[in-house]
Amino acid sequence: MAVSYSHCLQSLRVTPRTRLFVSNVDCWRDNRIMKSYSPVSASSKKPHQDLSLEAKVETLLDSVKWDDKGLAVAIAQNVDTGAVLMQGFVNRDALATTISSQKATFYSRSRSKLWTKGETSLNFINIHDIFLDCDRDSIIYLGKPDGPTCHTGSETCYYSSVFDLLKNPQGEENNNLALTALYSLESTISQRKAEVASPQNGKPSWTKRLLLDDKLLCSKIREEADELCRTHEENEDKSRTASEMADVLYHTMVLLSLKDVKMEEVLQVLRHRFSQSGIEEKKSRATQG
Amino acid sequence: MAVSYSHCLQSLRVTPRTRLFVSNVDCWRDNRIMKSYSPVSASSKKPHQDLSLEAKVETLLDSVKWDDKGLAVAIAQNVDTGAVLMQGFVNRDALATTISSQKATFYSRSRSKLWTKGETSLNFINIHDIFLDCDRDSIIYLGKPDGPTCHTGSETCYYSSVFDLLKNPQGEENNNLALTALYSLESTISQRKAEVASPQNGKPSWTKRLLLDDKLLCSKIREEADELCRTHEENEDKSRTASEMADVLYHTMVLLSLKDVKMEEVLQVLRHRFSQSGIEEKKSRATQG
Repeated sequence: MAVSYSHCLQSLRVTPRTRLFVSNVDCWRDNRIMKSYSPVSASSKKPHQDLSLEAKVETLLDSVKWDDKGLAVAIAQNVDTGAVLMQGFVNRDALATTISSQKATFYSRSRSKLWTKGETSLNFINIHDIFLDCDRDSIIYLGKPDGPTCHTGSETCYYSSVFDLLKNPQGEENNNLALTALYSLESTISQRKAEVASPQNGKPSWTKRLLLDDKLLCSKIREEADELCRTHEENEDKSRTASEMADVLYHTMVLLSLKDVKMEEVLQVLRHRFSQSGIEEKKSRATQG
Repeated sequence: MAVSYSHCLQSLRVTPRTRLFVSNVDCWRDNRIMKSYSPVSASSKKPHQDLSLEAKVETLLDSVKWDDKGLAVAIAQNVDTGAVLMQGFVNRDALATTISSQKATFYSRSRSKLWTKGETSLNFINIHDIFLDCDRDSIIYLGKPDGPTCHTGSETCYYSSVFDLLKNPQGEENNNLALTALYSLESTISQRKAEVASPQNGKPSWTKRLLLDDKLLCSKIREEADELCRTHEENEDKSRTASEMADVLYHTMVLLSLKDVKMEEVLQVLRHRFSQSGIEEKKSRATQG
């Protein structure tokens, strides 16, 4: 262990992406920003600071409640969408490697060795933060995947619904990703868009009307934004605000679908803004200017 | 196993919430709707149909790749926000119980028995769907928690950031939930709101200006919605659409914060709409009427 971990810290000293001493918010910073972020710049560190870092990492690794095989569960989650990408196991080396390389790394129980997700496919999971659970035996790798995570080419490894399988055990394709509310809606809108484009375009729907009528869609978006504001201006009940915000989200997501923009891209924009100069300062300057 | 699993199926026959034969979209249906959903109504089932269901569940349980201790990893995820709530292990009985009871159930390795999350705290995790991964040895419980999941009272069990711990190992409180982009933004806005309310209200920010000026906030929301529409009407690049949508999201989320509405509540509204009569039909009727 000592040798490989030493190697990890070595790479930690030379990589420009290192940001061990960066706060949560700073963890959003992208590669370009990392390079100019002096507190974590390798060259500025004194040797004794590195030793101190090494000691801190060792203490942290000691605090993990490794099981009788020296393993803990690691769950990789998409930092923008929240999708659970995959789950594997880590040993001490794997976690140390992930901390230093910032690429999600696991311990393969079948091959008895470390493996970094993406080492073959190049679909790395780039780590933004790592979380330990209350019992210190379960870990979240919060990261941004370079491409599909599953070896099947699927975006995540979770695409078999138990209830679908029970309904149709012989189903040729029971391929439905585990989607949370926002992405389930995005998927539904995307299906309607595909139906609109096909000759047999299924039953009529409001989404399809919006997809086919730009004027209607844009007038609805402006109208729903206005209604959302009025729930505040006219001091309406908060349930009205939630309902109008749902309308805003739905209609704007139809527009996103028309423009082939994924909600994930929008969230990435927000994440970058809040970590770079900050939307707040930028906007503040613009308004004051 | 046979006895307890038999018991599970027994409960599956009598509970009105059972919806084993419901599609993914139908899985969003709430309790009230379940009761009137005839294809899964217990009373309408013939005995041979139950046997067939029992066989299907057995086949499904056989397909899971249980480890040498008869366990698989189970990850509980919030169906609305995507937050990873907790992670435990399941054996065959625990998964069977979750399928029939629709309450996230695990196998406690320390106590060598089943436990249903919430059996003591009443903070159950109500299952909406269950997913198996490509290797069939890892499971997602996609559900809605009744309250905080962690025994500490935290919303999720993942609140210790490795990078925070390395930065400040002796930190009294390194309590930052593992938040994805949307909820990280929500948390930042919420912090600004708290600062606005305190006597020492920190440094100036655009968010604070918006929080203090209703007129400015509402005019910005209407303006950003208009700008989003114009990216479509004027056939602008899709990166412009993503950027304007980010503006819409940010400004509307400041309004949500003022009204004490969580994004989770908005997503719950959307989820219920798309599963009940469907926003599409409802809106379609309203427009045609």
